[in-house]
Amino acid sequence: MKLNLLLTGNELMAGDIIDSNSSMIAQRIAPFGWRVSKKVTVGDDVDELCAEIESLSENADVLIINGGLGPTVDDLTAEAMARVAGVQVCEHPEALASLKAWCERRNYPLTEANYKQAVLPEGCGILANTRGSAVGIAMTHNDCLLLATPGVPSELDAMLDNAVMPMLEQRFSPGFIRTLRLGVFGLGESGIQEMINRELSDWPADIELGFRASMPVLEVKLTCRESIDPAHMAHWRGRVEALMADHLLGEIPVSLPSAVLEACKQQELRLCTAESCTGGLIASQLTAVAGSSAVFQGGIVSYSNGVKISQLGVDAQVLDREGAVSEAVVRQMLSGALAACGAEVGIAVTGIAGPAGGTADKPVGTVWIAWGGEASMHACELRLPFDRQGFQRWVAALGLDLLRRHVLGLPNMPNIVQRFVQS
Amino acid sequence: MKLNLLLTGNELMAGDIIDSNSSMIAQRIAPFGWRVSKKVTVGDDVDELCAEIESLSENADVLIINGGLGPTVDDLTAEAMARVAGVQVCEHPEALASLKAWCERRNYPLTEANYKQAVLPEGCGILANTRGSAVGIAMTHNDCLLLATPGVPSELDAMLDNAVMPMLEQRFSPGFIRTLRLGVFGLGESGIQEMINRELSDWPADIELGFRASMPVLEVKLTCRESIDPAHMAHWRGRVEALMADHLLGEIPVSLPSAVLEACKQQELRLCTAESCTGGLIASQLTAVAGSSAVFQGGIVSYSNGVKISQLGVDAQVLDREGAVSEAVVRQMLSGALAACGAEVGIAVTGIAGPAGGTADKPVGTVWIAWGGEASMHACELRLPFDRQGFQRWVAALGLDLLRRHVLGLPNMPNIVQRFVQS
Repeated sequence: MKLNLLLTGNELMAGDIIDSNSSMIAQRIAPFGWRVSKKVTVGDDVDELCAEIESLSENADVLIINGGLGPTVDDLTAEAMARVAGVQVCEHPEALASLKAWCERRNYPLTEANYKQAVLPEGCGILANTRGSAVGIAMTHNDCLLLATPGVPSELDAMLDNAVMPMLEQRFSPGFIRTLRLGVFGLGESGIQEMINRELSDWPADIELGFRASMPVLEVKLTCRESIDPAHMAHWRGRVEALMADHLLGEIPVSLPSAVLEACKQQELRLCTAESCTGGLIASQLTAVAGSSAVFQGGIVSYSNGVKISQLGVDAQVLDREGAVSEAVVRQMLSGALAACGAEVGIAVTGIAGPAGGTADKPVGTVWIAWGGEASMHACELRLPFDRQGFQRWVAALGLDLLRRHVLGLPNMPNIVQRFVQS
Repeated sequence: MKLNLLLTGNELMAGDIIDSNSSMIAQRIAPFGWRVSKKVTVGDDVDELCAEIESLSENADVLIINGGLGPTVDDLTAEAMARVAGVQVCEHPEALASLKAWCERRNYPLTEANYKQAVLPEGCGILANTRGSAVGIAMTHNDCLLLATPGVPSELDAMLDNAVMPMLEQRFSPGFIRTLRLGVFGLGESGIQEMINRELSDWPADIELGFRASMPVLEVKLTCRESIDPAHMAHWRGRVEALMADHLLGEIPVSLPSAVLEACKQQELRLCTAESCTGGLIASQLTAVAGSSAVFQGGIVSYSNGVKISQLGVDAQVLDREGAVSEAVVRQMLSGALAACGAEVGIAVTGIAGPAGGTADKPVGTVWIAWGGEASMHACELRLPFDRQGFQRWVAALGLDLLRRHVLGLPNMPNIVQRFVQS
């Protein structure tokens, strides 16, 4: 099965947005052994769209068109598809019913702009959109299946699951591919590559090994044909997992917060946070995980010294003497949070995210992290060479990983932290 | 000047990496009034590369090729360019000298793999690479300037500045462009389109008007030639701003949190948060802004009822009687946070993010938001039709906007909220 991709949008051509949709589509079809052969992106111009639909459908079995289904004048996909097929656009009863239902559920009036989304090429099929007002369009041209999908990523995501993939699976025989993705934290990409070259030089040809850095977590990807012997795959999975050792978080969709929550849940530990320089990022990452309330009790964002004193019981004299970014303060922050939230374990961080606020003694990038429980508390000082946003992301990731290691009884520090440790 | 773009790489086709290079290129040429007409992405296949170079160079003045210049066997750009031009690849003295200098500076041996990067199409020009080993390639074909650039973003970045842009500026006359981006919250894309159709039907042809939805904030973009009369541009900017009215946040890079912080700063108000269902997201968005510590004091993430009682002073009986998601509790949460953090204004939220936890009375998506100060407190109940992640993002955005409106003395509610209001 040969599949091409046509993306449309002036905002894509202007570089105002970065296209993540084509990556989503490629990843969704990969397990079936399919790939995108060619991808073309053009602006919102109906003549160019027509020319590309014509040419990309000529040598392909499927052409997925993405974008241009919305309510505004620069949404031209339906018009271009109709023109290519030599038909008119007209009111599509099913699409109109779907649009009306969508508006009703949300208490929206059905405006003229929205109505445009029910005006589709005569005789086309539609693809249900469970998350937005614009249905997708299905038709055949040049013996090629044309599928028009919405540009909003969350809507595309649902439409791929509900409509596009079932249609492709029905029409074409998949050559199923099995993929295993492992989440790893605390090893760099070149570090992993070197370990693998050294320790897994006998890696077999029938399992493909890949990496993907989505910092701070790294993804190690094993891909093979579905027909492969499961024991063979299990053996090599085991070898990789052993090599990653305590840096292995688990099988994706694992994440640092989900790994911490799972570890605490298994040990029946309640969790809390006390955040200064990350300003709530750790708590928000934990609570983004569904079901986190079973473990996570709450947290204090102690951005000012006043809140450190009043809410976390940090000693004003210690704060004055040692400074807010110090071991004494971070330990008192954690103690205070554990007591305030009624939790057994927690993470506390205090540091200088920058760009301002650094001193010769404590430059921008300095952070104290404390983790563990009242009777088993650890703390360390790190100096991180990142900008404000990177600093906050890394402090959150490191805090979560240090607690994960503590709860699971793993070695104290991930490999990558060593070079940042100050004390 | 017509410019096309050809990207190459199996990792792009597989969706393992998201292409940010084409956005970088588009943004770099935009101030000169140039844009990318068409963008094609193919895998590492020399026949496909040749076909695309041939076809994309036919109707263009410039074709930028990105990727495939590296040292590995799947780097095929030089070979494809040579084949299209009908010449051989051979050792390029300048490229070899540059490669040797690069290796020496880094104390690397000149390996065979690296040497491949000095084997280029006969007679081509080179583009200096100040950050990597692979030089770029310049040649002319079909009367089109072909420029091959590296796929590593940091190397591309430098090569655009040092080699590509100077060459383009020299050969083609730029038509400098001015761009203004306005951040808007609380109007939908179709809503804005309709307002503009209705109120600005006399919009002038020499200013381009565009939209970009990066939910929850919408961007309105005005673009014109640099030669335009500033008073003319100012007039139309004023018309758009008047139309957006209280939904206008300001000129981008404004964001909801930065607008709230700025409003509070001007009125010398200290700010705090009390978050249940957003779990620290509002605080982390505020503290992602550099300089937020001048305004933001801190926040309580009261995920459990225990923390609501102990840290925010919520009455246990009220909590029991009214439930955690209620007007009485959200008001007590805000009062508690204002007192705990020593702040004059704040935002409190409590709701049901889902997927579990809903009841017939209070289904998933229900949220109570309180905002303002102790003596000027407002609260409202909303029901939001989003999944967990969307719910948390929207509650954060709405909470921030409601407080922004309060501090600035604007109408209480953004347009978009009306349909979610329960009471």
